[in-house]
Amino acid sequence: MTTAVLSALIQPMVEPHIPEGIDAQFYTSVEELHALAPQAEIGWFDMNEKEPMIEAVKRAEKLKWLNSIYAGLDFLPLDLLQQRGTLITNGAGINAIAIAEYVVMGMLTIAKDYRTVVRAQDKHEWLMDSPGKLELAGTRALLLGFGAIGQQVKPRLEAFGVEVVPVRRSAADGALGPDEWRGRLGEFDWVILAVPATGETDGMIGADELAAMKSTAVLVNVARGTVVDQDALVDALQAKRIGSALLDVTTPEPLPADHPLWSLENAHVTMHLSGRAQNSMFVRSAQRFVKNLQAYVGGGQLEPVFDPVRGY
Amino acid sequence: MTTAVLSALIQPMVEPHIPEGIDAQFYTSVEELHALAPQAEIGWFDMNEKEPMIEAVKRAEKLKWLNSIYAGLDFLPLDLLQQRGTLITNGAGINAIAIAEYVVMGMLTIAKDYRTVVRAQDKHEWLMDSPGKLELAGTRALLLGFGAIGQQVKPRLEAFGVEVVPVRRSAADGALGPDEWRGRLGEFDWVILAVPATGETDGMIGADELAAMKSTAVLVNVARGTVVDQDALVDALQAKRIGSALLDVTTPEPLPADHPLWSLENAHVTMHLSGRAQNSMFVRSAQRFVKNLQAYVGGGQLEPVFDPVRGY
Repeated sequence: MTTAVLSALIQPMVEPHIPEGIDAQFYTSVEELHALAPQAEIGWFDMNEKEPMIEAVKRAEKLKWLNSIYAGLDFLPLDLLQQRGTLITNGAGINAIAIAEYVVMGMLTIAKDYRTVVRAQDKHEWLMDSPGKLELAGTRALLLGFGAIGQQVKPRLEAFGVEVVPVRRSAADGALGPDEWRGRLGEFDWVILAVPATGETDGMIGADELAAMKSTAVLVNVARGTVVDQDALVDALQAKRIGSALLDVTTPEPLPADHPLWSLENAHVTMHLSGRAQNSMFVRSAQRFVKNLQAYVGGGQLEPVFDPVRGY
Repeated sequence: MTTAVLSALIQPMVEPHIPEGIDAQFYTSVEELHALAPQAEIGWFDMNEKEPMIEAVKRAEKLKWLNSIYAGLDFLPLDLLQQRGTLITNGAGINAIAIAEYVVMGMLTIAKDYRTVVRAQDKHEWLMDSPGKLELAGTRALLLGFGAIGQQVKPRLEAFGVEVVPVRRSAADGALGPDEWRGRLGEFDWVILAVPATGETDGMIGADELAAMKSTAVLVNVARGTVVDQDALVDALQAKRIGSALLDVTTPEPLPADHPLWSLENAHVTMHLSGRAQNSMFVRSAQRFVKNLQAYVGGGQLEPVFDPVRGY
């Protein structure tokens, strides 16, 4: 028998689908988790707090596969997991649909200046003309990052008649390569950041990139605040060197109440809510785990595999 | 030679494409319009005011084809035009893309409760969770009216994984017939009104239809205010018998400052802005006119033809 140690929160969704040969043990507290961890060959050790998860991983000396609903797992003892040869699957893309919906919503609200409409309704004021008159149809979007989120964003925007050009490791099928996009920044109405947070993407949008964009371009960031040089962005927005920015992520989070981004007319701060604007994350995560469990038993491929070296 | 009397506003877009055999005369004032109208076989008599347009039509005794950028032309002397056998082409669908974009924006902003996010930014307040958690993915929309607007709405929503069921004169290809949709109202998360304003559609959504909807359903009206029994709607919203309403149109317009719709938390009033949220209406209208002009000269079909009896 293979022992799987799993949170009781997902028990109702997972238990009916446990394959033969798997002994599923469900924990309801930190104490139970820590008591069960040493037997675990398969572990889904998620808790609200990080410390008990770290401790569980340390105790789980037999662990061959660790699963998590979270996408970013850099807080775990990754060196230890690597030494043990533990396979890690994470929550990458679990909330990609919610994020993609948020991206398109944000772009539409900027195009139509819906924020001004909201404020007008609050004042019982009937606007006689639209404060925003941009149509998405016929515009061009550069999509940096073509993982789970980018792949959900692209078809949605294409349905609006937006030409979406992704950036990929290798340029193909209309995509730009990693060394090509900077020289083409001036061609796009939208620059959408959906890259993973790594050393490579840290500060990838700085003063030079902002200067290269159209003066009407909208920067959309659903990646991480650190992907953008935020001081350079504030300067560009204040000087109106770009049109506006939709910032689901900032540095730091929460943004301090006196930060200039809050009150800039062309900054739209959405408080890292994009991925949270859904109720289906638990269900999707459980469905994915069940599929992976069946693959694990049958000797198939698990996905998505988290690479502790790349960090995503 | 066939004389066409056209507004000087569209001259730059139309003049380079005037076919052989057409003598285009451009007016820059009401006086010029009224002086030229009697010679017109083809007329595009649009003005900001209705009275000069009515007078121009009266004077245009030779008029065989009247074009307009407007969709609703019931203010014109339609009986007279019918007597003369004048063909009428109107602006139906010219702003359909802008309206479709607005519909999807409105649905997304309601799903995520983006209005609360806007108000939070205005207060420099970082929300820790999304005030709205609905995903469009997996929801179902009933689309009443499958003309130019409905046809633009459907593929956009489908790209979000929304199942869109249109209502058509004859049920086919997954569409419901005009007598079928009332009995199915309880199956839909969204009820979208994009019907023309006619006697048939007047008050088509009343207390009974609202009562038949899901208690979480969202009513979206981009048709005319009169399509909905507005008092019944206010009651339903106040009693939370439906989830919310996105009202691009109301009765009357503008809505008086003391109207209850302004301050209902589940009413989203967008002030008939959906069609105005674009800059391309003139260009698209001119392109369509040029195409029709070529068809007129070549003996082809003009579209869209406005039927003075149906009123759309």
